[in-house]
Amino acid sequence: MIDHRPGVLSPQSPREPLGSTELSMPRDRVSLQKSNVCSRSYFVLVMVFVHVYIINVIALLLYVHYNNGPGDSSAVDGQDSANPSFSNSGAHPLPVNPDPGPDAMYLPRLEGIKVGHVQKVALVPNKVHELRTLSMKPLLFEISGFLSDEECRLLIHLAKLKGLQESQVMIPEGGDELAEQLEISQEEIFNLLDHNQDGQLQLQEVLTRSRVRDGIWLTPENVREIYAGLKADPDGNGMLSVQEFKKLNTNAFQQFLQQRGVEKSQLVRNSKHTWLYQGEGAHQVLRQLQQRVTRLTRLPPDIVENSEPLQVVHYQRGGHYHAHHDSGPVYPETVCYHTKLVANASTPFETSCRYITVLFYLNSVPGGGETTFPVADNRTYEELSLIQNDVDLLDTRKHCDKGNLRVKPSQGTALLWYNYLSDGKGWVGDLDEYSLHGGCVVTQGTKWVANNWINVDPDSRRQTRYQQLVSRLGGEETATERLEELYRGIHADQNQNFHTDQDLHQDLHTDQDLHQDL
Amino acid sequence: MIDHRPGVLSPQSPREPLGSTELSMPRDRVSLQKSNVCSRSYFVLVMVFVHVYIINVIALLLYVHYNNGPGDSSAVDGQDSANPSFSNSGAHPLPVNPDPGPDAMYLPRLEGIKVGHVQKVALVPNKVHELRTLSMKPLLFEISGFLSDEECRLLIHLAKLKGLQESQVMIPEGGDELAEQLEISQEEIFNLLDHNQDGQLQLQEVLTRSRVRDGIWLTPENVREIYAGLKADPDGNGMLSVQEFKKLNTNAFQQFLQQRGVEKSQLVRNSKHTWLYQGEGAHQVLRQLQQRVTRLTRLPPDIVENSEPLQVVHYQRGGHYHAHHDSGPVYPETVCYHTKLVANASTPFETSCRYITVLFYLNSVPGGGETTFPVADNRTYEELSLIQNDVDLLDTRKHCDKGNLRVKPSQGTALLWYNYLSDGKGWVGDLDEYSLHGGCVVTQGTKWVANNWINVDPDSRRQTRYQQLVSRLGGEETATERLEELYRGIHADQNQNFHTDQDLHQDLHTDQDLHQDL
Repeated sequence: MIDHRPGVLSPQSPREPLGSTELSMPRDRVSLQKSNVCSRSYFVLVMVFVHVYIINVIALLLYVHYNNGPGDSSAVDGQDSANPSFSNSGAHPLPVNPDPGPDAMYLPRLEGIKVGHVQKVALVPNKVHELRTLSMKPLLFEISGFLSDEECRLLIHLAKLKGLQESQVMIPEGGDELAEQLEISQEEIFNLLDHNQDGQLQLQEVLTRSRVRDGIWLTPENVREIYAGLKADPDGNGMLSVQEFKKLNTNAFQQFLQQRGVEKSQLVRNSKHTWLYQGEGAHQVLRQLQQRVTRLTRLPPDIVENSEPLQVVHYQRGGHYHAHHDSGPVYPETVCYHTKLVANASTPFETSCRYITVLFYLNSVPGGGETTFPVADNRTYEELSLIQNDVDLLDTRKHCDKGNLRVKPSQGTALLWYNYLSDGKGWVGDLDEYSLHGGCVVTQGTKWVANNWINVDPDSRRQTRYQQLVSRLGGEETATERLEELYRGIHADQNQNFHTDQDLHQDLHTDQDLHQDL
Repeated sequence: MIDHRPGVLSPQSPREPLGSTELSMPRDRVSLQKSNVCSRSYFVLVMVFVHVYIINVIALLLYVHYNNGPGDSSAVDGQDSANPSFSNSGAHPLPVNPDPGPDAMYLPRLEGIKVGHVQKVALVPNKVHELRTLSMKPLLFEISGFLSDEECRLLIHLAKLKGLQESQVMIPEGGDELAEQLEISQEEIFNLLDHNQDGQLQLQEVLTRSRVRDGIWLTPENVREIYAGLKADPDGNGMLSVQEFKKLNTNAFQQFLQQRGVEKSQLVRNSKHTWLYQGEGAHQVLRQLQQRVTRLTRLPPDIVENSEPLQVVHYQRGGHYHAHHDSGPVYPETVCYHTKLVANASTPFETSCRYITVLFYLNSVPGGGETTFPVADNRTYEELSLIQNDVDLLDTRKHCDKGNLRVKPSQGTALLWYNYLSDGKGWVGDLDEYSLHGGCVVTQGTKWVANNWINVDPDSRRQTRYQQLVSRLGGEETATERLEELYRGIHADQNQNFHTDQDLHQDLHTDQDLHQDL
């Protein structure tokens, strides 16, 4: 159709006479071949041409319309004519999202304004939710009544039906595979661990490593005890020199702990969990929940749909999860699990790239179990100073009351926070270190929560390629099935060691330590 | 032209034969009058119709293009084809601004990302400036080399030519006009001053009032001394009860101070200043500076152009400006000076509505003179706890070293900060209390700075009406002249009392105190 257009507009272009009737016209004014103007074919041609333009105009109008809100059909703006029930009284229209132009990818980000700020949002018909800003660093919101009590009960029921597994096994072995893989010497490891580069390993520096590598939550006293048992610190100054460190067998700590025995309460996390898939064929409540999360985050639906399944976690009385980051730091070599297939890169620095965490409280915990954000809205973030001899702000069994912010679990309430900062150009930037959080020890009853992580690759081209791949794979097997397989492979193996599981439950310092001084 | 269109698309519409030649066409396929299809007029009509569509398409394309950046011609996006020299190497394209729709007003806001974040911006041809985030609360940036040394010298020269005046006169009289105007009783004033509502006026509460009303920077010891002199606190507990307060003459403090004498160093501010107009006819450097500020802020040019003139301030050795807010809090009754004419409201709660402060350092001060932000990025803002007996964080003569952030004056460097938060809908929201700042005492040499305040009414309709008014007035006298008159009336009168001047140099607590408990 469109091929005809140049011909129509260019009077010089050769064209054979299509019709038979000729129209008399002064040549000096319009130099068209007389025969064409009157022909039926010419008329059809003009009509085609006109219609192409009408289609162009409509397409442009649609483009303008949909580019005003990349959330598209799912973005709630109070003026959505298709959903008149959403223009609830009292609900402010959500701000219009920036137009990124045809090429740029843009991730809308909620505005926090200031601590205590409340904005009304329409997420489901006939209800207005309140989005309350709890902190600016990290950008953290609370939405009460996000889930109904029935929905909470159903999620717990579905998780039980599927079966829960321990979130962390006791003592993993072979923790030095990474070092071997990287061919790093003991001396190099020492330098990597020596954050402040003073030629000595302080207790904090050793603790940090043990917590990340072994998943054992040692205290400064524990480390002193181990040093004494292994005779690792003959000068008894509580610090290891290079010489002292080199004498230690790489697995000395693990062997010592295995002989001595480790309690569940000494692990980084003490809970059970399972994964619920939310794609096609999933329970209606799971599907609706995904849509609600899409509206809440205002992200494009395919980003939310191609993220990790819903994780349901159960903490028994005494259960906890020490303070950690849900995702890893961004380095040039960083590769995300979810886009690994399109990364074309092999690197030991893999992380889960969880742009957003949406945490649901599925029950109101009778005692303890708060979510703590120990450094929320702190003026500075200094990793090593978090661990002191008397107060370890990362310890959610002992020092939850010392953190800056604690949220009490209340059935149906959701928390949403960003694990990454903006890059200032509409995409994901650096890890937000202030997003450090943990689950305080449950002192009464049990605690059920669910996590919805929204995965976004800080490399926007990779994210795009990943989404193209997933939509292509959709023909053979559904994207959901593929994701299910992928995550089953990573998560569901009961016999995996701590490392593999931890990879998806990125703890404080993972990768970062090794990278800090590279 | 367009009136013809329906006729073209509707074959049933009656139309008189315009041409003479008829085209034979099967009636059952296209029910057009034969005579029209072949006529010259018909051809002209179709061409008109086609061109209207082409114009539509072009208009839509332009609409899409320009809505990508409401900053328009002045917004720098590195792809500005009219200014190819701006697409400097290394300068990231600035983020695309949200599309506010045809009705909504939208104020772009720079992104801070995190403390220490650096973004490159193109403000002048052949140069890339770095915008460094100094704090998130307030959103504060530093741009070094914003002005050249010559520009700095010229601004000082122009200010000297115009002549500088004392920023604050010694002891104002008639400070109770406001109370009389409001018909507030002594008892009501007591209640307004009694922040913590404990039925007693603490020293801080009295201090705050004296600093705001009289412009005298009293210390807790000063107040105790005055109490003793006036025998105002017979029980000697350092606090005034309602009874004790009522016995005080409303001007007792002022009278006491007048007898005792006040030093310049005891004033809220100790400097001289003048105003330089930047509109049509102003020195080229002043005009260029305004354009540069427009680019930097990414605001619509008319907002910047209709703001206050440039204020040049000179601090002698020993000069200071105690910590204050540049603008006032937002209440339903608040009226901005700059939009007062269109406000149609009479209220004693008038403020300057300075959305943004751009502060330029015109010289490098040999000693002292730092700009302090005592509560920048603090976790909380508690007004009364800023003033303690031992440390008064508002005092820039004594305790500048105790604040959270201090910026050393360096010739040509600019600071930019937002005095107001966003309202989450693209406009100005509440006052950002963390924007509290002051000028530390100059210990060596003198200090020259300039302030560019960008005025925006938190009521967007008023701002719109104001801008319409200014552009209408532009016919008779230029907007600049009108502004000049307006500001000359307010600022330039050497004999005005402190109150009038203070109104435009909104200090901490102004209005707020009276409002706090209304």
